Parts: sequence; C-alpha cells; structure tokens
Amino acid sequence: MGGDFGPEVVIPGAARALERHPEITFILFGQREKCEPFLAKYPKLKAKSVFHDCEVAIAMDEKPSQALRRGRYVSSMWRSIEAVKTGEADVVVSAGNTGALMAMSKFCLRTMANVERPAIAGIWPTLKGESIVLDIGATIGADAQQLLDFAVMGGAMARALFQIDRPSIGLLNVGVEEIKGQEEVREAGRMLREAGLDTLNYAGFVEGDDLGKGTVDVVVTEGFTGNIALKAAEGTARQIATYLRAAMSRSLMSKIGYFFAKGAFDALKDKMDPRKVNGGVFLGLNGIVIKSHGGTDAEGFGSAIEVGYDMARNGLTQKIENDLKLYHTRFPSTSRAGSSSAGPEAA
Amino acid sequence: MGGDFGPEVVIPGAARALERHPEITFILFGQREKCEPFLAKYPKLKAKSVFHDCEVAIAMDEKPSQALRRGRYVSSMWRSIEAVKTGEADVVVSAGNTGALMAMSKFCLRTMANVERPAIAGIWPTLKGESIVLDIGATIGADAQQLLDFAVMGGAMARALFQIDRPSIGLLNVGVEEIKGQEEVREAGRMLREAGLDTLNYAGFVEGDDLGKGTVDVVVTEGFTGNIALKAAEGTARQIATYLRAAMSRSLMSKIGYFFAKGAFDALKDKMDPRKVNGGVFLGLNGIVIKSHGGTDAEGFGSAIEVGYDMARNGLTQKIENDLKLYHTRFPSTSRAGSSSAGPEAA
Repeated sequence: MGGDFGPEVVIPGAARALERHPEITFILFGQREKCEPFLAKYPKLKAKSVFHDCEVAIAMDEKPSQALRRGRYVSSMWRSIEAVKTGEADVVVSAGNTGALMAMSKFCLRTMANVERPAIAGIWPTLKGESIVLDIGATIGADAQQLLDFAVMGGAMARALFQIDRPSIGLLNVGVEEIKGQEEVREAGRMLREAGLDTLNYAGFVEGDDLGKGTVDVVVTEGFTGNIALKAAEGTARQIATYLRAAMSRSLMSKIGYFFAKGAFDALKDKMDPRKVNGGVFLGLNGIVIKSHGGTDAEGFGSAIEVGYDMARNGLTQKIENDLKLYHTRFPSTSRAGSSSAGPEAA
Repeated sequence: MGGDFGPEVVIPGAARALERHPEITFILFGQREKCEPFLAKYPKLKAKSVFHDCEVAIAMDEKPSQALRRGRYVSSMWRSIEAVKTGEADVVVSAGNTGALMAMSKFCLRTMANVERPAIAGIWPTLKGESIVLDIGATIGADAQQLLDFAVMGGAMARALFQIDRPSIGLLNVGVEEIKGQEEVREAGRMLREAGLDTLNYAGFVEGDDLGKGTVDVVVTEGFTGNIALKAAEGTARQIATYLRAAMSRSLMSKIGYFFAKGAFDALKDKMDPRKVNGGVFLGLNGIVIKSHGGTDAEGFGSAIEVGYDMARNGLTQKIENDLKLYHTRFPSTSRAGSSSAGPEAA
C-alpha cells in the first residue's frame, strides 16, 4: 500500500521482478479492494502469490509512534514485516513511510545481538560501478562503536552484493588539514585499523568526492551526513540533467546534434537512471527489510525487489551475524567501549 | 606563492582580474626570484602593483600550527593578511593551504565581537542562479548560537553579493519524519524564527537536494556536513561529465551529434565550470579573506579575486558587523545561550 502510488506501482513492480526471476514467490499484504484491480492485470503474478487482506494501511505522513499505535499487528506494513519474523518470507520490500517502516521493523524483528542501532544502506553508482553507503538516514549521530558496527555490516552487505571476499571500507571525513574530522570518526578509524579484520579491508578516511569516484566498496558515516550527501548528489544529478536538456534544445544545430547522438543520450540516461539503484537496505535487524523510494515507478520498485532477492539469496543476515560475532568475540575490549578519546589519525 | 602552481597561476590570474576591473590595484607578496619571470610577462599588472619580497612561503601540506610558528610576520601569507589588518589592502586572496590561511587570519585579524568561530562560505551554482552555503569546512560541529551567527553572516554576504534586501535562509537538515535532525539545528531554527530579523528571511529547514534547486539564498550548516555535501556534489558533477564524454565518443553517430551540438556542449561546460564559482569567503573576521581552490588555473584565480573585489566594494565586513550588532543588541538573551533543549520544530 506504500509509496506515492500504492498498489498501482507495487503490483506491476512485483510482476517485473517475477519476469526476471520466475523462482520468486510473493506474499502480498494490502487492502483487497484497492489491490485486486491491479492484480487482475498480472495473472502470472497472481498465480505466484498469496494475498492477505489488511484492514489498516500506514499513511506516508504518519509519525512512526502513531503508526506503531495504529498499525501494530493489523496494518499491511506490520504484517509484511511479521512474515519475515515467522520465516514465512525471506525479505520484505516496502515503498512506504520510512520512519514507520524502521520503527515497526525494530519493534517486530529486533536489532541483532551487539547492534545498538540499525542503519540504512544505499547503493551508490560510481565511476567504477557501485558502492554501498551507510547510514543514509536511520539515525542521527553515531559514536565510534556504532560506526564500527556500520563498517562490519556494510562489509557483510558488500560481500553479499558484490561477491567479493574482503571489501574495502572508508570512513567519510573532511580533508581540511590538522582538524581532521569528528572525534568519533577518528576513534572509529583507530579501532578499525587495530582490529585488522579478515572480512574487510579498512582503507582509511575518504572525502565527499570519493563517493562518486568509487574509491572504496563501502563508505561509512552517520545518518545526518549520509542523508545530506546522498540528497546533495541526487540534486546535482538532476540539476545537470536540467542544464543538459536546456542546452540540447537551445538551437537548431543542437537539436540536430541531439538527433544524431540520441543513442548516446539514451545510454547516458540509462547510466544515470535512479531507478536502477533503488532500494535502501535496513542493516542490523533480525531479518531483511528493503525500503524502496516512495516516488519510484514499477521499474524502480522491481529493482528494489531484486535487491532484496539478492540479499536473501546471498544470506545477508547470516553474514552480518557471523561478522559481528567474529568481531565482538575477537575484540571484546573495544566492544561497547563508547568513544574514548584518541589522538589524531593520519589519513 | 600558494596553490598547486604558485605564481604561475596567481600572477596571470591577477592580470585577468585587472583586465576586467582596471580600477583594482595589487599588493603582491612572494619570493621575488620566483615571481619576477611571470610578472615580467604582464606589464600592465606590474604597473598597477607593489611587490613585497618575502623570505618564507607556507607549504600546502604544512600543519596550521607549524605554519604559524614558521611563518608569522615573515611569510607571504602572513604579510598579505597583515596588509588587510593595517588597511593597506581591502581584501586578501590566497590559493594557499586552507588550514594555515584560517589559522593566520584568526591570529592576525581576530574574530569579530560576538563571533565565536569564523566560517567559510562558498558560492553554490543552482538552477535559479547562485546560493551561499556555509560553513564548508572551517570548523567541525556548531551549536545553535554558532549556526545562528552563520545565518546572520551568510545573510550579510548575500546582501553584498546578490544585492537583495532580505535574503532567504534555510538550515540544512534531514527530512526523515519525527527524528528531524540534530538538536542544535532544531534549536537554531527556533531561535531564527523567534528573532524575526529584518535582514534575513528564515525559510525553515532545507534538505540536501535543495542546494542544487536554489530553494533559498543562504544554506546554513556546520563545517563537517557542509564540506562533505560540497564535495559530494562536485564529485557527482565530475562523474556525470565523465559519463557524458564517454557517451559522446561511443559511436560515429554520437560523434556526429557532438559535432552539431558543440555550441550547446560548450554552453553546458561553461555553466558547469567550477572556476566560475571559485572563492571561499572567510566570514566573521575583522577583514576579508578569500580562499581560492589550490588546483585552479588563472581564470579561476581571477574569479576568486573578483569575488573579493565584490565583497570589498559592497562593504561585507561592515554589513556583517552591523547585522551581528543588531541581532545581539535586540536579542541579548539568546546570545551565547548555547544549545538549551527545545521541542521539535515543524519543518
């Protein structure tokens, strides 16, 4: 029921994912009378899904606390998360209210042992391919230990998503000489360096422009900065697309040029298509929850389902659990130590 | 002497600014034997400038504390700042080491009354024209009162740069329901709303993608987030430019298209030219200091000089001083109150 368009986008999105991965089966949660008309158009999807009629749908502007009060046990959002908890589903995908989805996921699935706060990881298109960036908005602020947990979780996700053994991890920081960043970022850097984990390769500090370069596989930051960096980059991409459209329609010559180069522009458009990297992954919970952009279309929602499918198939939850356990067993002293002070680190 | 190229860029840059503004006069500080060969090529500039031979040049990688010890009173950086202090110069422009430049500027010019920490303001190209964003990296973290000082100073700069009476100001925040951002940002928002200043129009919270949209004239944030947002946007712009170049050379058809649309591409390139918005302005000091990108060329350094010229001509320092005095006289109770707790603000 979630997102700006509800079942109008969610159901065709599921149908697209099914076309590409016929082995997927769906459990759909929603208000029957609103979903049936769309479902009727996709007989293949209907045949591969079970529908659960839910009396309550969480609104996009509901406060998380209100959503929890009103929607616990009965809403389509809650019940879909619960299906992951009971093991009926391997992953839940929603385009709904982010705050409510996170609140319900935490309440229903609970955070993993040793994880204080979950994070949302996004897939960032880079010049080299893709990177994982977290946290992009689950929590504001993070101490050194939380940043370290984000690094371990992001590393596990990179292993699941990119199929690499020892992903490189960078801590997002500013590069202005001497005053190199927040104390907690420096402390996290020190801890990561000392830990020398087998599951990830700590590459030091990275700056804002390393995101697009793809300098590392995983970029770790707290949710305030991560959310603003993500939206600043998205805004810049839209801004340049606007300039480009204006430039191509400014004269007869440029229109002729556009005509000849249309194939190239289509390739560029495809490269910059935000729908292809749709799907924020909630990390640190006992189950996989994928948040699709609320404003996406069927193609974009299909991508979010595919991200979820990849995560489930590659055992994301198990990987994170193992990595965290490994870390916290090997370095019990640093666990939950908070941000004790540390000297500046050479980046 | 500063920047990646020293006098090779700085001197031709000054010559360009002089061509456009023949009324400017220059006081040049540097090592004579390194500067003379370049200065000899620009007789007009030579005629309009006074040269001071300085024994010390601050290196780009020197730590601010080290630069202060080694370069105080004797370096070209220090002496150029001092020229602003003595009133000999109206503004200093440097492509040198940012940390050292800020440290020396603070030490030599001192921060204004009522300003605890200076900020660096950048000019951000937007779909509507230009906005001012601060702080882009002078200090890490800021409490509510400091954010409010940034707002007042950014507002004064907008009045000087854009020639508008009451610039709109937004506080950079995240838009994830309920948990709307850091406590200090919320508190600053409350204070700005209550202050109801004549010199600025507080427009509420803005998000990362509002930067490129140009939603407000001035975007206020602390230096960690501001620096990362700026570099994330710059990185995205470079990333898309790379995609675009690759797209245009991928086939014969796209090359033909590029040939026809070359004028349009040149216009786009011009629009995206980072040299045009070169020049970070140090705000909150008793004098105007402009920091040029270290890696820029003569055209870019010329732009930084022009930013400085605009700031000096429009009485930036006086405007900031007046606005701050007005604010701190009218609202002494909120001044230096620190970040007392406040309820959530509706964005």
